[in-house]
This record gives sequence, C-alpha cells and structure tokens, in this order.
Amino acid sequence: MHIQNYLAEWKGKIDEKLVDCLPPENTYPSTLSKAMRYTVLAGGKRIRSILLITTYRLCGGEEIEKVLPMACALEFIHSYSLIHDDLPAIDDDGYRRGILSSHKKFGEDIAILAGDALFSHAFRTIAESSIIPEKKEKILKVLTYAIGNQGIIGGQVKDVESDVEMKSPKLLRYIHSHKTAYFFSVSCEMGGILAGANKEKLLSLRRGGLFMGMAFQIIDDILDVEGDREKVGKEVNTDENKLTYPSMFGLEFSKKIARRYSELSMKHLKLIDEKEETLKNMILLLLERVK
Amino acid sequence: MHIQNYLAEWKGKIDEKLVDCLPPENTYPSTLSKAMRYTVLAGGKRIRSILLITTYRLCGGEEIEKVLPMACALEFIHSYSLIHDDLPAIDDDGYRRGILSSHKKFGEDIAILAGDALFSHAFRTIAESSIIPEKKEKILKVLTYAIGNQGIIGGQVKDVESDVEMKSPKLLRYIHSHKTAYFFSVSCEMGGILAGANKEKLLSLRRGGLFMGMAFQIIDDILDVEGDREKVGKEVNTDENKLTYPSMFGLEFSKKIARRYSELSMKHLKLIDEKEETLKNMILLLLERVK
Repeated sequence: MHIQNYLAEWKGKIDEKLVDCLPPENTYPSTLSKAMRYTVLAGGKRIRSILLITTYRLCGGEEIEKVLPMACALEFIHSYSLIHDDLPAIDDDGYRRGILSSHKKFGEDIAILAGDALFSHAFRTIAESSIIPEKKEKILKVLTYAIGNQGIIGGQVKDVESDVEMKSPKLLRYIHSHKTAYFFSVSCEMGGILAGANKEKLLSLRRGGLFMGMAFQIIDDILDVEGDREKVGKEVNTDENKLTYPSMFGLEFSKKIARRYSELSMKHLKLIDEKEETLKNMILLLLERVK
Repeated sequence: MHIQNYLAEWKGKIDEKLVDCLPPENTYPSTLSKAMRYTVLAGGKRIRSILLITTYRLCGGEEIEKVLPMACALEFIHSYSLIHDDLPAIDDDGYRRGILSSHKKFGEDIAILAGDALFSHAFRTIAESSIIPEKKEKILKVLTYAIGNQGIIGGQVKDVESDVEMKSPKLLRYIHSHKTAYFFSVSCEMGGILAGANKEKLLSLRRGGLFMGMAFQIIDDILDVEGDREKVGKEVNTDENKLTYPSMFGLEFSKKIARRYSELSMKHLKLIDEKEETLKNMILLLLERVK
C-alpha cells in the first residue's frame, strides 16, 4: 500500500477511536469535556499513535482493537503537552492545528485544567484497557520515563530556559531529544512491548524511534522558518529567539542533519521493517513534509 | 498512641520517603528538580498519604516499605494540583504552606511544568514500585477516576466557573466532593486494595473517606474566613467571591455540617477502625484543626 494511503487509513481508525475514548461532550462539566475534545480532535498527523500500531504489527501483534486505546493514550499525552506549551507563560502560541489554541478558545484556566485532564485521561485509558497487567506495568515504566522530568518535561524546561544566544549544540540536542525524540522512541518501543518483541527488537525500536524523532523536530524547526502558516496550521517564525537547528546551523545544514538522522533511524528499524518498509517510507515522507 | 504523636510519626516517615522518591536537586534540568522538591517538601499535613498507610494497616497490611511509594505518589499528585491551582489564571494565590507559591518563586512557566512533572512522577513512582501488577492496575483504575475529569479536575473546573452569587447547594456539593473528597476517598480505598481488603471493606473505605473529605473541605473554607494567615500558611479571605459553605450557609451552620460529615465518616470507617479508633481520632482532630 502507498504510504500516504497507509497513513490516511490508520489516521482514520485512530481518529474514530479517539472520539470513543474521550468523554462525550455533555459529560459534566461540559466546558472541560469540550476543551478536552477540542484539541485532541482538531486533527494532527497522529504519527505517535501510528508508530505504535505499526511497530506492534511489524513485531507480529494481531490484536489491533486491544492496542488502539494505548495509541489513543499517546495522543492524549501529546495534546496535553501542546495545550500547556501554547500557554502565554510558555510559548504563547495563538494557533494550533489551524485553529485557535486552547487558551485562546477557552481561557487560560480551562486550558491548564484541560491539559491536566487529558494527561490524567491517558493513564485512565491505559488502566482501563484490556491489556494484561504485566504489559501495562512495562508500558507505564517506559512511558512515564519518556514523558516526565527526565523526558519531555525536562526538554520543555530547557527549551524555555534557552535562547538563540546560547550556541551549544549539546544543549540543542538535549532539548530536541527530550522534548520530541523520546516520545517517538517510546511510541515505537510500546508497540514492541505490546507485541511481546524480544530485547534486541526493543532496542532497535527505541533507537530507531529516537532518531526519527530528532529528524522530525529538526524539520519542524525548518518549517517554522520556511513554512506556510496555512499549511503548517500554526504561527510561523515564532522560534526567532529560540535555540533551533536553523538558528545554529543554518537551513541547508539543518536539512542535512535531518536527513542523516532519518538514515540512522531507518538503519535501526530495518530489523523489523525489512519486508514491508512501512517505517522507512514513513520516515522518508516525514523528511519531505510541508506541514 | 495519642493521635497527634501518631500523625507526627507517620508524617516523619512519609517526609523521609518523599525525599528519596523525588529527583535529587542536581538532576538535570536542576530548575525543574528544585521546583518539584520545593512544593512537595515545603511541608503539609500528609493527610492523604497517612490515610493510605492507616487504612492499609487497619486492613491487615504489613509491608509498609512496599506501600510507602504509593503514599508518596498521592502527595505528588496533591502537590501538582496545588501548584496549578495557585497559578494566576486559576486561584492566583501567592502563598502556600507558609512560603511563596511555585509560580512566585520560579515563574509561571516553570510552575506549570513542575506541576506536570509531579503528575507524571506520581505515575512513574507507582509503575516502579514493587507492588504486584494486578494491584497496580486496580489502583490505577480507581486513582485515575478520582483525579481526572470526573474527579478533582472536574471539581476545579466548576470551582473556577462558579461564584458566590450562584446559591446552589448541589453545585457546592459537587465542587467539594470532586475537588477534595474523592481524593480522600481514593486514598482510603487504595490502602484497602493494597492490603487485599474485601468488597464490603472497600465500600466502607470509599464512603468513609468521601465524608471525611467533605468535612475537611468545609473546615478549610471556614479557616479561610476565621483563620490566622500565620497558622494557615496561606493567604486568608481569598474565597470572598467563591461559592463556599460559609458564604452559603454562614459559619455556624457550616460547622454543624462539617460535624455531621465527620460523624458519617466515622460510622462508615468503624468496620475497620473499631479496635484502634485511629481514623476516628484523626477525624475528630481534623474537625478542630486551626491550619
């Protein structure tokens, strides 16, 4: 199947499941339910959840229905993190996924609480899923590491603490790996854990996902400079005072680095992807993306 | 043992374990580690964690060391919720536990992220604990319900949406039960689950904890009117425009309601507390507290 059709098909299935897994709009208090649904259902590429499903499948997993709630949990965590990131005190972004960001739509108080609620809902969704407790435990261990103070949140803290003047490639790598790449990495690893993959495969998934995430974030930074607001779906040129690959290495060299990370990712993921090449094609597509 | 000594002893043990379970201050990024430690270690009565330990003990649990991380997780969740509640966009409180609130000390951006990190850390602490996976799963189910959109966060949303003009006892009860009492309830229930208590006991714990939490929150509102800032450790008279028991029923009648909830709580908890009367004495002490 052509990779774009593959992604569209899975995005459709995940979107459907997200609607199911979110509190219905009239769940009291309805402002909160609406705000939770607003950001999650505003769209998005669903890359993290598709990665989980794809790695699960490629490692021999066949019970997609059982695994879909786990994929949804990743999207809830991703959305919570976007909502909090967009707040005036952090990145102060007014648009996200082509529509007003949560705090512009619902006010800062509801946005903070909707982010919290989605975070909590992710764990509830995992807890309530029909995966066996031993696998849930394994998943929670890797997930809470990747999204916590030594993962996503650590990356966000260094992101707000850094500025364009700090010309440190090490710091930049820390921010990108923690803010973005760990989450890609754990999405791939979770697919493997759920499918019962062996240690060697889990390591490849972890590494392959990490490099894919690095490439993804560099492209994101490049799109902030070069991108079209209409296509990107959020304000562009918002990173002017931020430490980014383009600000440190220039656009052309940043593109080279993104390509290099993509190659590394494909190399590591080859172990599970040799036949289908779905992940490889996904990586190539992400490298060329315009939004 | 006298109840005040009992509480002091367990608070000591929990405080010690909290220090252990938090990221060391120099964990990169150190601003985040410091902010996480700042609010958690600023003190606090540790009621929720002591409730978990006490109900665990009273239900026959003997492996305190194994259960202490679960108690810490409750304190991390409580602290995250206080940090986000104090933010300018929500309650705008400058003081907490007698010291500057997180955003006053570290800035709003770090406060939001420190709250997120503590939330995440709570689940990491549960995931990493040595409790068997089946119990972890049970705990996660009840906990994520109590703290999520239909629990604490739902209560907070209605709290920010309500004001003193809305003379609805039903709404007031919703806010108090969700914002505070569900968390007391689940703390008690978790102790029972960890000790392997039967269904009847779990129900008593859930109900007893709920009524205790209602009484606790009403006393909190009363202290906001009558209390001494020095003793309470935060600004008082901050609830002037809020829907509270004193604003709806007056101080004297609110005290009566708090007493009534305390009695109901004792009645339900009697099933596990008949011999020791620790919970009973704790409830009576909370009813008379001045901070």
